[in-house]
Amino acid sequence: MVGFDPDSPVFRVHAGGKLTVRSTMPLTDRESLSLAYTPGVAEVCTAIAADESMARTYTWRSRLVAIVTDGTAVLGLGNIGAAASLPVMEGKAALFSEFAGLNAVPIVLDTTDVDEIVETVARIAPSFGGINLEDISAPRCFDIEQRLRARLDVPVFHDDQHGTAIVVLAALRNAAAVTGRRLEDLRVVVSGAGAAGVACTKILLAAGIGDIAVADSRGVLHQGRTELTPVKADLAAVTNRSGLTGSLDDALAGADVFLGLSAGAVGEAAVSAMAPNAMIFALANPTPEVEPTVAHRYASVVATGRSDYPNQINNVLAFPGVFAGAFDAGARMITENMKLAAAAAISEVVGDELSPTHIVPSAFDERVAPGVAAAVAAQAIRDGVADLALAGDR
Amino acid sequence: MVGFDPDSPVFRVHAGGKLTVRSTMPLTDRESLSLAYTPGVAEVCTAIAADESMARTYTWRSRLVAIVTDGTAVLGLGNIGAAASLPVMEGKAALFSEFAGLNAVPIVLDTTDVDEIVETVARIAPSFGGINLEDISAPRCFDIEQRLRARLDVPVFHDDQHGTAIVVLAALRNAAAVTGRRLEDLRVVVSGAGAAGVACTKILLAAGIGDIAVADSRGVLHQGRTELTPVKADLAAVTNRSGLTGSLDDALAGADVFLGLSAGAVGEAAVSAMAPNAMIFALANPTPEVEPTVAHRYASVVATGRSDYPNQINNVLAFPGVFAGAFDAGARMITENMKLAAAAAISEVVGDELSPTHIVPSAFDERVAPGVAAAVAAQAIRDGVADLALAGDR
Repeated sequence: MVGFDPDSPVFRVHAGGKLTVRSTMPLTDRESLSLAYTPGVAEVCTAIAADESMARTYTWRSRLVAIVTDGTAVLGLGNIGAAASLPVMEGKAALFSEFAGLNAVPIVLDTTDVDEIVETVARIAPSFGGINLEDISAPRCFDIEQRLRARLDVPVFHDDQHGTAIVVLAALRNAAAVTGRRLEDLRVVVSGAGAAGVACTKILLAAGIGDIAVADSRGVLHQGRTELTPVKADLAAVTNRSGLTGSLDDALAGADVFLGLSAGAVGEAAVSAMAPNAMIFALANPTPEVEPTVAHRYASVVATGRSDYPNQINNVLAFPGVFAGAFDAGARMITENMKLAAAAAISEVVGDELSPTHIVPSAFDERVAPGVAAAVAAQAIRDGVADLALAGDR
Repeated sequence: MVGFDPDSPVFRVHAGGKLTVRSTMPLTDRESLSLAYTPGVAEVCTAIAADESMARTYTWRSRLVAIVTDGTAVLGLGNIGAAASLPVMEGKAALFSEFAGLNAVPIVLDTTDVDEIVETVARIAPSFGGINLEDISAPRCFDIEQRLRARLDVPVFHDDQHGTAIVVLAALRNAAAVTGRRLEDLRVVVSGAGAAGVACTKILLAAGIGDIAVADSRGVLHQGRTELTPVKADLAAVTNRSGLTGSLDDALAGADVFLGLSAGAVGEAAVSAMAPNAMIFALANPTPEVEPTVAHRYASVVATGRSDYPNQINNVLAFPGVFAGAFDAGARMITENMKLAAAAAISEVVGDELSPTHIVPSAFDERVAPGVAAAVAAQAIRDGVADLALAGDR
């Protein structure tokens, strides 16, 4: 089998899996057992049965995330199914734990039917304090997230959309600052109208970006295109103020920002036609849409999705703090403003260290998750979606 | 609210919940992240996508139990719903961890519909290595278990049935030995035809008990009763060899064993009519069906479900080792023989310490779970349901 070497470091760290569930207290005598289990536990059950809000304080769910996938869009591997997606979901759960002290459990689903996914997640929802949707293919992911948000009164967050969008906005704000420009003056070209492309475009519009053109594999989205999915048609209606109709390469002429979210390679000719002091965010992994050495010839700021280049756009800057903040506030949902607040908090951590090669904090900067959590929790309160009386213990 | 005192020991140990999910390795630098998460994890995903059996070795699911309930029959509290059942399921998960080193996650369901429960569990099944059904009311629990066993190729085990049955058989075997009798010579009266009553009756028949009469609230099950559920009718067909038709009290006259699984009190007059050297297992919690001081007047061996009396019949003697053994063997299911092997292993741990007040090991006897696991794994291999090549790492 290609790529399988049981003695390689990757397979060795995966042997036995990457997660463990443990009791928060030792159960080594009758006394501890009678408190944590029968007969003592019955008092807690009775209290929750009388007042379900007690479950926030006296169960683990108030700080527990379900990481839900159907395995249809896993990393760059595509539709590899539930079992094969599990190592990614375990890794994600490990990140929730390591970066924000939250508990998270992978739930990989043996169905790709939208109705069944929504029903299944809704039925297991009382087990969890929040739902992180992961690696579900577009456009199904939009419908699934929207329906679960409407149905559940806990945070539902599709990380491939919103985690990426939050970090992109944080990076772009700092890139604009370091090159002396305002967000509202930028013309942005987004390559890719999948989960990340849609969410990034929406958050950039919400943040006041002047003009955005979004391109899919057939070119720039515009209202004259009749074959668009409903999601893309909605996007065409609120973007492309200048009425572009051509290819991605055409759109790049004179653009300030390229945001690559598609893995489609962009040639040097198109890149060279961008505006002076351009910003190139080529986020495809492992191969950026624009080769970084080429990008640096024409751009003042270059970001990728890779850890071996500067300015890595890494979702781990966002999702641990977003959920931690939502849980801290007892938030019933994650609002658009909470995402904007998260992006601002990530930008601010950079502070005086801001430079063209340092527009986002390191993934390991320990100030990030607490800063994001504080900003998200405060915004939840301002937005009226917090119930501090219900907030989970930290 | 009755019973709610945030400063009491019970509520203090429950604050924040009783479980935590942690990474098995620290993720504190780019190197560890690139092994446990992207890009390294893609190699593991690819290997599993090519050969799903790889998931046994390279994910955590091979030693991960889903503790599934709909909250309809929780402890003695009845139908208290999903959220209120969560503290019990957390406690159960803590026991899996503390007693057998297994990972377990509570899944509490927002449905009590049998079809929906089966569908939901089947859809999330790729996330887990085994399914422990818990506190689901009878007779629905029988149908749910049977359908999931047929549908899934991992262990499915309704602990209220089989955990209780295994420990009861272990205890009864030792009670017979200590009073110098053979199982096949015993006449047993079972009070209660719910989950535990049905499963205990079946395992006792499989172990060769001579004659068993089962009573529900309307008296002894017999083939002349026309109002029986299908499960009870099946039980009537294979029990009550002597053709009893009266009440529970009538059946106790001359019986060797009373097995109480119902909470229905039994008076002293009926107990006094049992055979000499009777055995009384009065397992209702917190109030045994026969008051222990009364039971001791007429019985040579008395067992209860309580930790403050000798001979506690506690499921924790069974379920951690049963799942550990099934996982060790890579068992596709838990067979009847595996349950019998578990019971024998629990009996044998008592060994030379056997006495009328010590027919089962202490819940904290560290020999129990490994002994049960070894017996269950060996039996899985003999029964042809093991796939050792797929067995999870211990």
